[in-house]
Amino acid sequence: MTNFASDNVTGVAPEIMDAILRANDEHAAMSYGADNWTDRLNEKASAIFEKDVSVFPVISGTAANVLPISFLTPPYGAIYCHETAHINTDECNASEFYTGGAKLIPLSGVHGKFTADSLSAGIFGKGVPRHSQPALVSITQTTEAGTLYSLNEISEITAVAHNHGLKVHMDGARFANSVAGLGVSPAEMTWKSGVDVLSFGATKNGAMGAELVVFFNKVDTRELEHRRVRGGHFLSKMRFVSAQLSAYLDNDLWLRNANHANAMATRIAENLQKNPSISFVHPVEANILFIRMPRGLVCDLKAAGFEFYEMSTDDPTLVRLVLSFNSRIEDVDNFTKIAQKYS
Amino acid sequence: MTNFASDNVTGVAPEIMDAILRANDEHAAMSYGADNWTDRLNEKASAIFEKDVSVFPVISGTAANVLPISFLTPPYGAIYCHETAHINTDECNASEFYTGGAKLIPLSGVHGKFTADSLSAGIFGKGVPRHSQPALVSITQTTEAGTLYSLNEISEITAVAHNHGLKVHMDGARFANSVAGLGVSPAEMTWKSGVDVLSFGATKNGAMGAELVVFFNKVDTRELEHRRVRGGHFLSKMRFVSAQLSAYLDNDLWLRNANHANAMATRIAENLQKNPSISFVHPVEANILFIRMPRGLVCDLKAAGFEFYEMSTDDPTLVRLVLSFNSRIEDVDNFTKIAQKYS
Amino acid sequence: MTNFASDNVTGVAPEIMDAILRANDEHAAMSYGADNWTDRLNEKASAIFEKDVSVFPVISGTAANVLPISFLTPPYGAIYCHETAHINTDECNASEFYTGGAKLIPLSGVHGKFTADSLSAGIFGKGVPRHSQPALVSITQTTEAGTLYSLNEISEITAVAHNHGLKVHMDGARFANSVAGLGVSPAEMTWKSGVDVLSFGATKNGAMGAELVVFFNKVDTRELEHRRVRGGHFLSKMRFVSAQLSAYLDNDLWLRNANHANAMATRIAENLQKNPSISFVHPVEANILFIRMPRGLVCDLKAAGFEFYEMSTDDPTLVRLVLSFNSRIEDVDNFTKIAQKYS
Amino acid sequence: MTNFASDNVTGVAPEIMDAILRANDEHAAMSYGADNWTDRLNEKASAIFEKDVSVFPVISGTAANVLPISFLTPPYGAIYCHETAHINTDECNASEFYTGGAKLIPLSGVHGKFTADSLSAGIFGKGVPRHSQPALVSITQTTEAGTLYSLNEISEITAVAHNHGLKVHMDGARFANSVAGLGVSPAEMTWKSGVDVLSFGATKNGAMGAELVVFFNKVDTRELEHRRVRGGHFLSKMRFVSAQLSAYLDNDLWLRNANHANAMATRIAENLQKNPSISFVHPVEANILFIRMPRGLVCDLKAAGFEFYEMSTDDPTLVRLVLSFNSRIEDVDNFTKIAQKYS
Repeated sequence: MTNFASDNVTGVAPEIMDAILRANDEHAAMSYGADNWTDRLNEKASAIFEKDVSVFPVISGTAANVLPISFLTPPYGAIYCHETAHINTDECNASEFYTGGAKLIPLSGVHGKFTADSLSAGIFGKGVPRHSQPALVSITQTTEAGTLYSLNEISEITAVAHNHGLKVHMDGARFANSVAGLGVSPAEMTWKSGVDVLSFGATKNGAMGAELVVFFNKVDTRELEHRRVRGGHFLSKMRFVSAQLSAYLDNDLWLRNANHANAMATRIAENLQKNPSISFVHPVEANILFIRMPRGLVCDLKAAGFEFYEMSTDDPTLVRLVLSFNSRIEDVDNFTKIAQKYS
Repeated sequence: MTNFASDNVTGVAPEIMDAILRANDEHAAMSYGADNWTDRLNEKASAIFEKDVSVFPVISGTAANVLPISFLTPPYGAIYCHETAHINTDECNASEFYTGGAKLIPLSGVHGKFTADSLSAGIFGKGVPRHSQPALVSITQTTEAGTLYSLNEISEITAVAHNHGLKVHMDGARFANSVAGLGVSPAEMTWKSGVDVLSFGATKNGAMGAELVVFFNKVDTRELEHRRVRGGHFLSKMRFVSAQLSAYLDNDLWLRNANHANAMATRIAENLQKNPSISFVHPVEANILFIRMPRGLVCDLKAAGFEFYEMSTDDPTLVRLVLSFNSRIEDVDNFTKIAQKYS
Repeated sequence: MTNFASDNVTGVAPEIMDAILRANDEHAAMSYGADNWTDRLNEKASAIFEKDVSVFPVISGTAANVLPISFLTPPYGAIYCHETAHINTDECNASEFYTGGAKLIPLSGVHGKFTADSLSAGIFGKGVPRHSQPALVSITQTTEAGTLYSLNEISEITAVAHNHGLKVHMDGARFANSVAGLGVSPAEMTWKSGVDVLSFGATKNGAMGAELVVFFNKVDTRELEHRRVRGGHFLSKMRFVSAQLSAYLDNDLWLRNANHANAMATRIAENLQKNPSISFVHPVEANILFIRMPRGLVCDLKAAGFEFYEMSTDDPTLVRLVLSFNSRIEDVDNFTKIAQKYS
Repeated sequence: MTNFASDNVTGVAPEIMDAILRANDEHAAMSYGADNWTDRLNEKASAIFEKDVSVFPVISGTAANVLPISFLTPPYGAIYCHETAHINTDECNASEFYTGGAKLIPLSGVHGKFTADSLSAGIFGKGVPRHSQPALVSITQTTEAGTLYSLNEISEITAVAHNHGLKVHMDGARFANSVAGLGVSPAEMTWKSGVDVLSFGATKNGAMGAELVVFFNKVDTRELEHRRVRGGHFLSKMRFVSAQLSAYLDNDLWLRNANHANAMATRIAENLQKNPSISFVHPVEANILFIRMPRGLVCDLKAAGFEFYEMSTDDPTLVRLVLSFNSRIEDVDNFTKIAQKYS
């Protein structure tokens, strides 16, 4: 089977598994993050982001979203995001839960992106007791459509947010793929464009289960620590999470893995772009492709052992592919070869 | 000043104030609802709704919404409502709070109403762990646009809801005005059309502060009692709330008051409908009018002592009038007389 | 029937009912507290407390407790109170609900009071991520045992609290009876003794349903306003609540009513104190008496039409009497007369 | 350094690390638990417990507690546990958070155990709207004092619970050490003694981060799945958690590891029991020892590289040792040798 269903079906990158094994050999000073791996994450992330950041390791993408979101949003607050954002549609009310009942306000927009204008139009009610109080904007980068906000688009959104006193969160479950896709620096895509806090994903890009919350301004992290405990996300053997992140940040592993995944996606897109029976629903800018193809091809690919999402029973010609750090070029080429039969 | 800003700026109807005074003369057996007024609300409501109902008196519209909503929606659930619904825009996340973090899913639709089709299109994710679980539909009748769902529209919506296993709540803050406007029976507009629970408003229609939650199927009300206490809505001198509701239900006071308010709204609509400088943004079907009028008229009316909402600083020719149980015909006619100058 | 079961079974004091009727005659400028009664509460309370205070009217004792408590306690916080405190045993988890899950830490102590020492011993875990963070102390004055903390006891408790960075809340559902009982000024019993916020009860002492939250330091009340809305405690016809409180604060009505209730309790205590078959479980310091009496006397009193709480089926000789602003001296004397038969 | 501070400072048992590596070699069908390891956990646990159970893998002890607790306790409910229980003192209000505000009622009792009688005395308020509704009892086995409830003690407690309609949860973070310590079967210590749901710990006994929730009666696990997602505990690469648990349940690894840890604790206890300068604060029944020793010995042991908890700065002669699956006999014997100097 060749699994293009999601980048979260993959295993663990060898560099990360090595780090886990090494962490097991050493004896941590103490549990709950009082260890060398955890201690040094701040420093490593600060180097990558060219700024003195505060970081928090957690083990799931949802945890990496809801901890900073609940830190920045009061229970009577409102959170703006794209209507297809993971926090809005795929985390079963986790943001509402952790904030104590804040409201998510979904914004629409093509290719998984909302605009600064639609954000601006959606903000209202500030200071009026009966209205939810605008508190946070969450940008998903890479979007659920596999597209990317440009630096300019991000800056426009964060400017609107900051003008209204809102903070800006970036859901970067596929942050590395975005940096790779835009060809910019991590600093440029975040704090230099006005992002206040980032959920920096690792799991989809080679970790076993590890994500890093990155605050670009110094915050009183003690509140976050309490929130992490009460969420059940304070692991005793935290060093195994930190060891994963440590290896992920070392030697640009995060970026190399993402570059490979993106290159594989691009290869499929380029190979198929002249195929008249195939079209792309969204621009291919990172490691995800939404492809409309003949139903027969869908069946042939499945029969050949390819696994991928069929987006809807109502629309059986629309599929999603996600390429990964360990997708193999021969599988990619075999995929396109089968597709040629339908050109 | 003549206040057409909202029906909640009015005072208390004389019949209801009399009931409050009488409740003060008697000595209640005990506090917390163990009194004659509270005891008999079930029976009075059952007569009006032609069905054996379970009722709960509370003191605010928000409480009347969130208690049944939180009873019927798990914290991982989803609630469907019109995007302009009071529960979505004017209760500062009360539904999210009382449910423990359920998600409100806003549906669009003209004149403050969503359709059965848009509801049907919006329901998804049943049984999938990462998706909010569809749990409840909330219909606002009278809508925030002052319009009414027809019996047929209600039935179509409730059919979709029940097919998907969702319960149906009706936010009837202006329930009486709806019954008056449609000219149907309370039973027809609720359980006979598939509504499971109603927030039956009294405050806007002559009470001091009293609303009645009405369940059309027998429920285990003990859970609701605990939820009422923890919300801070269990009043020791509950009999003064129940006395208001008792007078409100007696002798069709609720319907008579609503008929008057609606008649006053209709009178304005009819008087102004031939006026070419004035238009109505939504059909006038109950006691609320959204009127577009020359800016000069807005100023003249304010100068003449009329109070009403200007809907937006961006759109200074759009105003909202709400007529009440005690709006006076001479004020209504004076209003239209001033408007004639602009015809 | 003569009802000594609780001070919350009584009706409304005539001065307060008059204020309600007057509020109905006037036309409030607008709803939701934009009215003269609400406007002037701050000023009236500031005069009584000899300090520029911030006030919030609400309609229930639970609301008056949980709004300031949730304002001052994070969801990962801990609240210290006596194990018999109303917030711990009689509000069905309202404090846990409104705070988003803070923990109540019950302290024991005789006669319904905990000491500064027991508080000091109970505070721990500050700064440790896995421990609830000490945030608030709540003193019930008058206690559930009908006793009073002396000024000295309050000051000792608030000193411990402030030394540890905790705020101090006073649940004053029977605040007036406490001021009357101690013979001190409202200022002395609150901010001069270190109390940060007070729930100043009116319902048990002659109001229909009204309590006043009083902050002794200027706070940003906007957050409280949002919290009041999402709790469903923002009433459209708020002026009827404010009118009650206005009358309550005027001309020392609050104190006169409390003085009467206390005097009636003292009269019973003095009349019965030499009766060898009767004993008082707690000192009688306000308007509540816990009396141990022969079971025959319990039955005789019930037969004579007296209503009061029997505290436990396991202990049928223990009863609680609560005297009220409108308890009549002849009923009190009739009570003691019946008791003489058992001396 | 020899670390006896806690069993959660240890690394990963070799059998479990092997399973993780094997899980990485295979290609899971899909993410989010749709894999062979997760599928077979139910079967493996059912064999161990001699009953058809429903299981849920999670990654932290707190998650393993709060998911079943929030499934079984309504927001207006009460949870009874020992005052020193982990859920009460070490999870920063996680149970209050996940239940939406339920109340934990702490019971006292020597050696970390409460009795059936103290539970019985603590249950009250059933059916009364203003009281928290008794919903759940949580037994910590092994207790925080390192002691064990006997089968008889458990049965007495669960009988009281069930008589009052409460469910029984067992916090088995050190469940394996309890089974080893009592020498009974897992079935005997759980459902045969009336336990409804177990948090079966693995992390402290050799896993990297894995715990198993075990329901002894068939439950509708769909609600739990939604609760797991909204808590952020639904991992995409769940198979690495399940692989750990799989290895843990295979070939009695859980029991062998626990037997070793207990044996090491017993060895210390036996070696030191005749030492007159040393006393044990609680019976040593599993893998934890609370030892009172001369302050000089505390210092000598630290100087010799032993790490352990000093329980309180106020009481510098009280220390806690926790022995682990990989504690070495030579370290244990070296520990006791140093202690001999003080005999």
